[in-house]
Parts: sequence; C-alpha cells; structure tokens
Amino acid sequence: MKRREFIGSALAAAAAAGLASCSLPGSEARKRTAAGAAGKMTLRFYPYELQLAHTFTVSSYSRTTTPDVQVEIDFDGYTGYGEASMPPYLGHSTESVRKFLSKVDLSRFESPFLLEDIMAYLDTLSDSDAPAKAAIDIALHDLCGKMLGAPLYRIWGYNPAKAGPTTFTIGIDTPEIVRQKTEECAGKYKILKVKVGLDSDEQMIRTIRSVTDLPLAVDANQGWKDRSKALDEIFWLQQQGVVLVEQPLPKERLDDTAWLTERGPLPIIADEAVQRLRDIPALKGAYSGINIKLMKCTGLLEARKMIAYARAEGMKVMVGCMTETSCACTAAAQLAPAADFCDIDGNLLITNDLFKGMTVRDGDMVLPDQPGLGLTKL
Amino acid sequence: MKRREFIGSALAAAAAAGLASCSLPGSEARKRTAAGAAGKMTLRFYPYELQLAHTFTVSSYSRTTTPDVQVEIDFDGYTGYGEASMPPYLGHSTESVRKFLSKVDLSRFESPFLLEDIMAYLDTLSDSDAPAKAAIDIALHDLCGKMLGAPLYRIWGYNPAKAGPTTFTIGIDTPEIVRQKTEECAGKYKILKVKVGLDSDEQMIRTIRSVTDLPLAVDANQGWKDRSKALDEIFWLQQQGVVLVEQPLPKERLDDTAWLTERGPLPIIADEAVQRLRDIPALKGAYSGINIKLMKCTGLLEARKMIAYARAEGMKVMVGCMTETSCACTAAAQLAPAADFCDIDGNLLITNDLFKGMTVRDGDMVLPDQPGLGLTKL
Repeated sequence: MKRREFIGSALAAAAAAGLASCSLPGSEARKRTAAGAAGKMTLRFYPYELQLAHTFTVSSYSRTTTPDVQVEIDFDGYTGYGEASMPPYLGHSTESVRKFLSKVDLSRFESPFLLEDIMAYLDTLSDSDAPAKAAIDIALHDLCGKMLGAPLYRIWGYNPAKAGPTTFTIGIDTPEIVRQKTEECAGKYKILKVKVGLDSDEQMIRTIRSVTDLPLAVDANQGWKDRSKALDEIFWLQQQGVVLVEQPLPKERLDDTAWLTERGPLPIIADEAVQRLRDIPALKGAYSGINIKLMKCTGLLEARKMIAYARAEGMKVMVGCMTETSCACTAAAQLAPAADFCDIDGNLLITNDLFKGMTVRDGDMVLPDQPGLGLTKL
Repeated sequence: MKRREFIGSALAAAAAAGLASCSLPGSEARKRTAAGAAGKMTLRFYPYELQLAHTFTVSSYSRTTTPDVQVEIDFDGYTGYGEASMPPYLGHSTESVRKFLSKVDLSRFESPFLLEDIMAYLDTLSDSDAPAKAAIDIALHDLCGKMLGAPLYRIWGYNPAKAGPTTFTIGIDTPEIVRQKTEECAGKYKILKVKVGLDSDEQMIRTIRSVTDLPLAVDANQGWKDRSKALDEIFWLQQQGVVLVEQPLPKERLDDTAWLTERGPLPIIADEAVQRLRDIPALKGAYSGINIKLMKCTGLLEARKMIAYARAEGMKVMVGCMTETSCACTAAAQLAPAADFCDIDGNLLITNDLFKGMTVRDGDMVLPDQPGLGLTKL
C-alpha cells in the first residue's frame, strides 16, 4: 500500500467512526481542559520507513530498514505524537498496525486522561498488537502532558537529573567495521552494548577492547544454546569489563537461565522472555531483571506498572527500545530516572528521524523540559 | 503540648532548617512553575484532635477521639494539604509525628515534583513513621496537582465515574445502638462494614439484618483465633449476605489464613498483615487481596505501586482509611477507581472535619473536580 492510500484509509476509518477534529483557540481550550472535557479525540496515522545508519545484524538476520507507523491524536487544540515500530522478527507489520488502528474508536472516550479505560479497551480489541497499542499510549501521554503543561517525568515524580547514561549498540560486523563504529562512539557514550550469540563473540569483544575500555553490556538475543558454555562465556565477559547480559538462552529455557543467574557473576536480564506485566511473575528467580520496551508492553502506562512490580521483587529494571524515531525513544527515556540500565539508542541508529527530543550529552540522556514528551518536529 | 507551643516548635524547626516561605504573584509563579523550579518548599504542621461521632469499639478497645496532625506545604504561591492520623493502637502519636516532621528538610529539594526522591529521603530518616510520611506525600501530591491544574485521579489516568461505593462502618455496640446506627445509614450507603471478632458477632449481624439487606463487609481485626470456627463463621456470614472478610486471624498466622482462603467462600483481605509494598509478596496465596491505607503505606506514591503489584498477582485491592478528616480520605478516594472495594468513611465518623472534599451520593463516592485533592477549607 502506498502512503497516500494508507492515509486515505485511515481517515476513512476515522470518518466512519464519527471522529471530527476540533480547533479551539488556546485559552478557550485551556479553560475547557481545566473542566476535564471538551470535544472528541481524533486519531491519525501514516506509515514511515526508518532508514538505518548501519546494516543491523543480530544472531538471526540482517536488515537496513525498519517499518514504522506514526500516530497523531488531536484533542482540544493539542496534538499528541505516538509511534509503532515493527522490527520484522516480532511478527508485526505496517499492515497489522493499520488494521488494528482502524478498529480503534477513541470517540467512545470523553478525554485522553481516561488512560486506564482506553488501554483496557485496546486490550479488548486484540490480545496482540503491542506496537499499535503503544503508539496510542505514547500519543495519549504526550497529549495529557501537553494539556497539563508539564513533562511526563515531572508528572510522574521522577528526577530528570537521574536519567543517566544510555548504552549505544554496536551491531555484529567485520572487525574493521566494528573497530570503526567503536571509534566513532567511544568518546560519546559511557557504556556500549554488544550483540553476541554468534561464533564471532570473542572477536567482537576483543575488537572493541582494542579501541576502548568503556563498560559493556552484551545481548545474546537467545543466541547461546549450551548453558555450561554460556556460563564460561559470562565469566570471561566479566573479565572483559561486561556489566550485564541480556537474554543469554532461548526464552523457554527458564530452568537453565535460573542455573546461569545463580552461578554467574553478572546480572541476567530478560528481553525476549518478557513482554508485559503478566509475564514477570514467572521470571522471578530465573532472571535478575527485565528489559522493558514500549513496543513489547503496550506503552508507558503498563511500563510504569512493570517497574513497580519489578522493584517490589528486587529485580533490576532496564529500559530498552527498538529502532524508532525520537518520538518513542523520548517516551522510553521519560522512564530512565526509574531504571538501573537504559538502552535507548534507537533514534541514534536511523538517518531519517522526525523529531528532536531526548538527547545524549557526555553519554548521559538529557530529557526535554517541554510538556508531554517534549518533542520538536524536524 | 498545647497547640500554640507545638506550632512554635514546628516553625522554629523550619527556620533552623533554613526554610522561608515565598509568595510570588500568581502569573509569575505559574511561569516559574512551567520552567520546573522556583523557591523552596515550606513545611508547616499542627496537631488536631479528631472528635468521633460515636464511641469507636473494635475487638481490642474503645475510644472517642483520634490524635491527628495537619500538614501544609507551600511552594510557589500554592499550598498543599496533608494529614497524619494516629489511632493509638498503631504505636504512633502526635509527639512521634512532630519529632519526625521536625527532622524533615524539604529545602534539599528544588521542587515538590521530585516525589520519588523526597519519599526515598523520608525513608532514610526512619524505617517507621508511616503516618508522618503519608502526611508529606499527601501534601506534595495536592501541591503538584494544583500546580498542574488537574485532580490527581485525572493525572493518574483514572476514570472518576468508577470511584464506586464506599462501605460505612458500624462499630461494635449494644443492639439498640447498632440498630439505630444502621437505620441512620441504611438509605445512604450501598454496602456496610461490620466490626466482628467478639462473642457478639452473630448478634451484631442479626441486628443489622433486622434493619437492612444491604451487602456487608466484615472486619475481624485479627479477632478470631480458631481457624475451624472462623471457617464455619465465614460460611454463615456468606449466607447472611457478607461479601468480604478482612483480617480474620492474627497477622502472623499466614498458613492458617491460607487454609481459610482456600476453603472459604469469601475473599479474605489482609489489613494488619500488610503495611507497605514490601509486605505483599509474602501474602500471595494466603490472602485474596490487600487493604491499602495511606497511613500504613506512607502515602499515594507507594499506594499506586502496591495497586500495580497486587493487580499483577491477581490480588484484590481494597482502599481503606483511619478516622481522618476529608483531607486524607479524599486522598485515598483518588485511588478508588483502581480499587475493587473501598472503605473510605473516616471523615464521616468525625464531627470536626476541616475540609470538604470527596462526598458520597447515593452510596457512591463523588471525587471533586478541582486540582490536586480538590479540597475546600471549611
């Protein structure tokens, strides 16, 4: 489907659902906002193909683009931005997102502030479609933050000075390219993330270590199969200055992962093994912590509940992302002050970002001090 | 200590901590608020003895007043209201609250929005003192809500139309008084709560049933000692239209409580057995749910995390209160849309309320649509 047709069908769906945009002047809008109700929400969305700066290779495949859908929700003179990113291996697509969003009727709700009700309603439409749900959740949060006149982190009670560093990911590649990429980013970040899980693991680490002694996080993306070899590798990685290991074994292998977590010297973080809040209880004891990604968990509302749950169980919290524009990355970064580790570099890995939002200064994330997500359209 | 002396010492403590009130004109304050920083917070507090409408009897004692401390935090031209209520059996007192609050130095924080940092700081000052911490948490939430120009439930994404009914508590008393109290409130509420745990239980229930067939919740306050008798009583209570049982056995008796929960026909809710988030994991399997009270859990920030945790574990959520003014009760009521059961009648049980806030209409709670807690001083 071409972009024009896609937008057309989205607008047709909105029209069919009886949606109408409203454009009140600012002060009037603000007054009605204070009263808590005004007009109807309008949902718009369009596909947007993300161009990757480097060919992206993980243990199972390579790619140069990521399909993505941008979402906008209008209400009361404000616009909230959201985004669905669909790395192909997760089973979602531009078409599946379009199909889901076309079913969504926000006119049932009198205000974007009814976040709990709206997200519960989205879950009644399908048990899957987390990226499309996240897109709506992010846009609603942006909208509510703008209507409240404050950044999300402030509304949530987080200290933006504690956003801390983000890892920057070095994809699997030839030693020359890995060396070059590492040199490019070694001065800009405080911690690097390395994709492992292939036979080239040791070479990757040694190549990076020939350039920098920055701390490293490794992500095996379920790529290791033998738990004893994995344990040996984790001990070796620790000696190389690695500080955490993401998803070492296939997600189904909980007992083997518990065995690794118990014996290994590094925190073991669940990624593929955890999507939503409901998945965490089963992981206790097997993993040291969880990697929360908005595209897996349906967005910020659920992400914050996952953080509360993980904390109560003494589990570590990592906040990650897909390749995304600064829209979804800045949304994820709002959670950074509540996280132990952040891997929010998706916007840095694309060449056609649509927004300026969270930035990285001396390796630390800087959250915008503008309302909502605090995005500026480029 | 008389009220004047008490205030004096509070102000002296504030002065010693280098606090100064600030009184910017509104628009200037609003501008600086949008930028996220302005002046210092000022903490004030004074004791206030709550007068009970009826002598209050539970399984262990009776009383006619409740000690209470009112808290006010000023920032940027706004004032947030908070409250600590100290039913004597919980081990806190006006003096212990004064002592704790005198140690609190809010000038360390540049904004009331740093809720996570401030509450973590309070926990470093003592491991106890939940009511004093709750008073600060409530005042900060009220302040932040006012600065954002929105009620707390809206900021949190809750639907106020789902606040639902509150139980109204009938204390243990003579049949004549119980009959009279029940007649007074039977038309006003949709569910009543009955204190049980004495030999008079059956008489209490039969007396209430002679007046009304409203659903009942019962609270044994750890008053039952024999699990088999408790199970028989719970089956009998179910036949009498009781819908939940709070804290049937002493809080230490987890295994016996699990035995009851497994065999009984009614949800068993933990009250004395749960104070804070950290207490919930141990209760899984033993109780069907938890009763969250701000004076036990240090306030709204932690209460919301407890709700997230309980939901993830499939536990029921009840929100309760102590005898309190409408300040703390309205704070608790902000959580009502996320709860299964509410027992927020503390303000209705006193004769010297200080505020108008949450009200009850046709048995359902009505949340104020004003910013923060939405209180009006009486």
